[in-house]
Formats: sequence, C-alpha cells, structure tokens
Amino acid sequence: QDKAPERWLPNLITETPQEGFELAVKLSRMGVKSTQPDKEVLFRERAKYAQNGEALMHASEVVAIHFQTVAAANSYWK
Amino acid sequence: QDKAPERWLPNLITETPQEGFELAVKLSRMGVKSTQPDKEVLFRERAKYAQNGEALMHASEVVAIHFQTVAAANSYWK
Amino acid sequence: QDKAPERWLPNLITETPQEGFELAVKLSRMGVKSTQPDKEVLFRERAKYAQNGEALMHASEVVAIHFQTVAAANSYWK
Amino acid sequence: QDKAPERWLPNLITETPQEGFELAVKLSRMGVKSTQPDKEVLFRERAKYAQNGEALMHASEVVAIHFQTVAAANSYWK
Amino acid sequence: QDKAPERWLPNLITETPQEGFELAVKLSRMGVKSTQPDKEVLFRERAKYAQNGEALMHASEVVAIHFQTVAAANSYWK
Amino acid sequence: QDKAPERWLPNLITETPQEGFELAVKLSRMGVKSTQPDKEVLFRERAKYAQNGEALMHASEVVAIHFQTVAAANSYWK
Repeated sequence: QDKAPERWLPNLITETPQEGFELAVKLSRMGVKSTQPDKEVLFRERAKYAQNGEALMHASEVVAIHFQTVAAANSYWK
Repeated sequence: QDKAPERWLPNLITETPQEGFELAVKLSRMGVKSTQPDKEVLFRERAKYAQNGEALMHASEVVAIHFQTVAAANSYWK
Repeated sequence: QDKAPERWLPNLITETPQEGFELAVKLSRMGVKSTQPDKEVLFRERAKYAQNGEALMHASEVVAIHFQTVAAANSYWK
Repeated sequence: QDKAPERWLPNLITETPQEGFELAVKLSRMGVKSTQPDKEVLFRERAKYAQNGEALMHASEVVAIHFQTVAAANSYWK
Repeated sequence: QDKAPERWLPNLITETPQEGFELAVKLSRMGVKSTQPDKEVLFRERAKYAQNGEALMHASEVVAIHFQTVAAANSYWK
Repeated sequence: QDKAPERWLPNLITETPQEGFELAVKLSRMGVKSTQPDKEVLFRERAKYAQNGEALMHASEVVAIHFQTVAAANSYWK
C-alpha cells in the first residue's frame, strides 16, 4: 500500500536559498521514511515529537546537516 | 492562522561574522518551525527547554552546524 | 551463520542524487551491522525503533551525514 | 536588563590554534545565550551540567563543531 | 596489562571504499578505547549496546563521521 | 588551584595520522575542561562515563569531529 516514491530527488539545485532549505526539510523527512515507510506510523510519531521541544530541535539538526549539503551543491547561491 | 513566511531567506551573505551567527540562529529556529508551525506550541516548548541546560546545548549545536554553512558561504568573511 | 557481505560497496558514484540517497541509507545500515552482525537482533531492534519518532530522527541524521559524503563524491551531480 | 552584546564577533581570524579553540568555546556559549539570554538561568544551568559527564561531553561536541569552522577560516594556521 | 597499540594507523589511504568503511569502523572503536582502555569493560559495554537499537544507531553515526574523513582522504576513490 | 594550561596547542600539524588521532583525543578533553576546569570533578565524571557504553560512544563521536579538523589541517597526511 505504500509504494516507494519515484523520482522525488531529480537534483540538488534550487533557485534560491529558501528553496534549498525546503529541500533540506524534505531530505530529512525522506530519511525518516527510509526507516519507517508506513505513513500511519509516521503521522502518529510526527504528531508526538512535534509536541516536544527536544525532539523538534533534533529535527532541526537533521535539516541543518542536509542544508550544508544542498548549500554546497548550489555553491551557496553566489 | 499561521502562514508560511515568504522570502525569509533571500541569501546567505552577511556583512559581518556576527550577523552570520545571527542568521545561523534564525536558520536553527526555522528548522524547528518546519516541523511544528504552530506558534503557540513553539513558544510553550521554547519556554521549557530554555530552562534546561542539556536542551540549551542542543540548540547551540544546531546553531554551530548552520554557522559552518553560513561561514563557508561568506568565505569566512576574509 | 552470518557471513560478512563481500563487495557491497564497489564505489560511491551513482547515476542520480536519489540513488545517492539510497546509498546513504545503505551505508547507515552497514554501520549498524558493523557493531551488531546478528540479523535476528538487527531485525528485532529495527522493528522497535521504527515505532519511535526520536529514534527515526536519529536514523535520518545518520543518513544525512552519509549523504554529505556521497554527494561530495559525486560532485553534487552537477 | 540583559542587553545583547554588541560586536562580540568582529572576525574569525586568530593568531594561534589555541586562541581559535578559545573562540570556539565562546561561540558555543553564545549559541546557548541566543536561546536563553537570562544570565541567572544560564549560570544555574551551567552549574548543573558542569557536574555531569554526559553533558560535559555534549558541550565538548559543540566546541568541536565550531573549532572546525574557526580552523577552516584560519586555513588551519598553516 | 593493556598496552597502547603501536602503529595501528599508518595512513588513511585504502584500496577501495569498502576498506575505507572498515577503517572508519576501526577509528570509531579506537575513539571508544581512547576513553576506556580496559578491554574487559569495553567487551561488557559493547555486548550491552549491541542489543540496543538506539545505541547501535549512535555507533553508526560515529562510523559515518569517520567515513567522511577517510573518503575525503582518498579523494572519494575517484 | 587549577591554572589554565599555557600553550597546549601550538599547531595542528602532526607527523602521522595516529598522532593526529591522539591530538583529536586531546582536543576532545580540552573541550570538556573548558566547561569544567575542576580536575576533581573531571576525574569523577570520567570514571563514571568510562563505565557506560553510550557515553563512551559519545566521547568517540567528539574525537571523530576533531579528527576531521586535524586530518584536513594535515592534508590527510598525503
């Protein structure tokens, strides 16, 4: 019931830094999904940790790591 | 009631290292907000972990990761 | 009963960013396996932390670190 | 009662690696302060986690991340 | 009774990415050993955290960080 | 009673990768000491977390981050 998404990451290039940040958020979620593909569990767990400051900071950390990659791929949009 | 902020990250270039550090703080918060956009929950949780040394250090860690990106984008302000 | 896999990582080059992401997921799992080669324990533990939001975010973090490496190896697929 | 410090980070260049390390320690603390500017809370929490080995290691981790940035900014003092 | 290993890290160059990954695993273990050289304690603790999914993921994270270093040292085996 | 060590980090260059690894271990400990300079507390806490697998892995993680810096400073001893 939960097919792997096809072609969700065609490339790392984005128009703006902000779109790069949004891509980093997406990469972070796809990393979670790679371990737990079941959407029901994902939504249940996301609802829980979205209520918890420490967990939210951890989510922000993963976004930060991916943003490093996306920013480098885009030569920092310079 | 909580619209996505438009154009909050036009670019990664800052005048000084200190403004770069402030941008890293902002990126860290936007990472939290990307998982929990509800401001009420954000304020409640921030109030809690701002009282906890371990959580504060985790916040500082995320700032450090983003500061790496911003500093590289600015060629370390050299 | 659990032989070390032979030649599971011939190189870091992938056709697309998405295949690079999948390689990062694989590297993350091989890192776990390097500490615990027993498949039965691996499956038992994976089943447990796949039900836990915090643990899933940690898995996503390890994928993010490996994705940095794979992306750099592929010159960000530019 | 707690004004933001003005011009605390003029640049990332230091004379020696050791001064660079001290700057990394400072950046780590400013990251904590960016989330909790109240000095009384900062001192209370620092006193607590300075007594805890795990928390001390976390502080050391944040210093390590900032030291990467400062070292790169100084071309590793070569 | 537990002598420091002599010349365990002659260089970071490996023939293949997979050998580089194995070196990363070794570096991760030597990092643990640098804090706790007593083999008996090391084996006891490894046996414990090898049974715990969260701890296994942490081990995988440290391997990932070292693999970044080894991969860069080998110019990503290109 | 606990004077700051003078000139403990003259430079990041080492003869061999292994000495670079030992420098990374030292940097990790100095990071802990920067938060808790009291040797008695340091020894007490180190004794505790040296008995705990999770804490040991965290120590190894900080060594890994510093080893990245030292390895880059030495152009990976190539």
